[in-house]
Amino acid sequence: METTATTFGMRLDAAARDRQSVVCVGLDPDLARLPAEVWQGVRDGPAGTARAVERFCGGIIEAVAEHAVAIKPQLAFFEAIGPPALAALERICETARAAGLIVVLDGKRGDIGSTSAAYASAYLSPAREGSGPRGDALTVNPYLGDDGLAPFVEAAVQHERGLFVLVRTSNPGSAALQELALEGGGQLWERVAALVDRLAGTPGDAPLSSIGAVVGATQGHVVARARALMPRAPFLLPGIGAQGGELAALAPAFAPGPGGGLVSASRSVLYADPGARWQQAAAAEAERLQRASWPLASG
Amino acid sequence: METTATTFGMRLDAAARDRQSVVCVGLDPDLARLPAEVWQGVRDGPAGTARAVERFCGGIIEAVAEHAVAIKPQLAFFEAIGPPALAALERICETARAAGLIVVLDGKRGDIGSTSAAYASAYLSPAREGSGPRGDALTVNPYLGDDGLAPFVEAAVQHERGLFVLVRTSNPGSAALQELALEGGGQLWERVAALVDRLAGTPGDAPLSSIGAVVGATQGHVVARARALMPRAPFLLPGIGAQGGELAALAPAFAPGPGGGLVSASRSVLYADPGARWQQAAAAEAERLQRASWPLASG
Repeated sequence: METTATTFGMRLDAAARDRQSVVCVGLDPDLARLPAEVWQGVRDGPAGTARAVERFCGGIIEAVAEHAVAIKPQLAFFEAIGPPALAALERICETARAAGLIVVLDGKRGDIGSTSAAYASAYLSPAREGSGPRGDALTVNPYLGDDGLAPFVEAAVQHERGLFVLVRTSNPGSAALQELALEGGGQLWERVAALVDRLAGTPGDAPLSSIGAVVGATQGHVVARARALMPRAPFLLPGIGAQGGELAALAPAFAPGPGGGLVSASRSVLYADPGARWQQAAAAEAERLQRASWPLASG
Repeated sequence: METTATTFGMRLDAAARDRQSVVCVGLDPDLARLPAEVWQGVRDGPAGTARAVERFCGGIIEAVAEHAVAIKPQLAFFEAIGPPALAALERICETARAAGLIVVLDGKRGDIGSTSAAYASAYLSPAREGSGPRGDALTVNPYLGDDGLAPFVEAAVQHERGLFVLVRTSNPGSAALQELALEGGGQLWERVAALVDRLAGTPGDAPLSSIGAVVGATQGHVVARARALMPRAPFLLPGIGAQGGELAALAPAFAPGPGGGLVSASRSVLYADPGARWQQAAAAEAERLQRASWPLASG
């Protein structure tokens, strides 16, 4: 039976198979580490900095497009520069889509319902020129509960976008909160996983939902448990590379298919070489990650 | 003993006493509810919309400055318009500060350490023209744990800014997660409150810390318990007005002094009158809220 891939979950799985890649390259432009050439001729100030960052991100997209299935701009680094960088990110997202890449905006937004609706409109509604970056998916924070997430889910369904809800993050201190033991059994993150699994039941999303989860790749023992709790959710798996996660531990993510996991690396790709060979080095690192992770995803 | 107020906590308390107000007016510009006059002569598109929003927010600040101690721009509504609205918000924040108001940026940001540092730089570092809005304080999300919050705390100390950590939010669905019962006793939000109280021990912040908490004003029974758990934290108390919270329940927030609570209202002030008298109606509603809440704060 042939279907036209429409939901985010279906598009993600189709794109991973088509490109034979589950690599997601995070765009975290750290100004102190950008190669010298992107600064040539730019003015001082936010507009010039945004121009340099746009060159860098464009160069990275060009370098890694062949080996990646997605890019993940980290909104914080663009917000830290100022509005011109968000205007640049709008163009960067279009460049990435033109290269066939899925765009995951990493903003970890979350608020009460009426405000979450504004965030969903900002990042998941159809693009309008000059209105800022648009993603195929957005990372969101579950601390405000299910009514805080509902507008994101509605926007994802309406606009055929995806969500990655923070479930178990990759940072060392996350365990103190996310692994809190609950009365009656289980840990906090497992309760959040159950919430994500309920949201993943959105109609039309079989077998891979459009409502996914962030599951830190530095917590290898967590991935299998997360997959058991969320059998249909695509996982965004940050923490490979600079954060030290091991690839082999990610295998359970791919139980629902190659779209079951996005193996996300940022600094290890972006800053693979600090000098003139930055694009070649980023391409090589993305290819290395693709070759190492694809057997897990397709196996 | 006289001291120069330098930390955010000290400035907040001094400002509340000086202005005899604990009212914080939320700036949530809902395009469908803006008065007709702010749209006059603006172009279609994000730049024109940002111009209308800037006029509206400027008019609200002018109207409420006499009765409020703080404004709280909700970043989502500006992000939903696009980069020109964030450039406008930079100017709006300067307008508010020129009117003597404290600026609380409501962004509910939170991420792993290196990314939280970028958010802290974006919103809590010293202003640079064209680099986006700056706040005297920022709302942050605790789901990533203490190392995710640490860069915000460091920036708050370094730049004499404040934080309001989400502890117990005002939305109906928040209880399902935030009131989860923990093994060994207590609820999740109480554990987050304990974390905030530890962070509130930052040097130089006696008797009111610069590290505060968001405590929903719709959960009256929660405020006294929150004050017991966080004796030194200023509370941001959203939910009065459109969300239905009762003022009298907020009294325990002010145990450490008038700076112990910011009584936050948004829609009930902004849209008090949909017609030509929008500024007068906003001023009247802010004054009503000031008169109703100041006795609680100074009592």
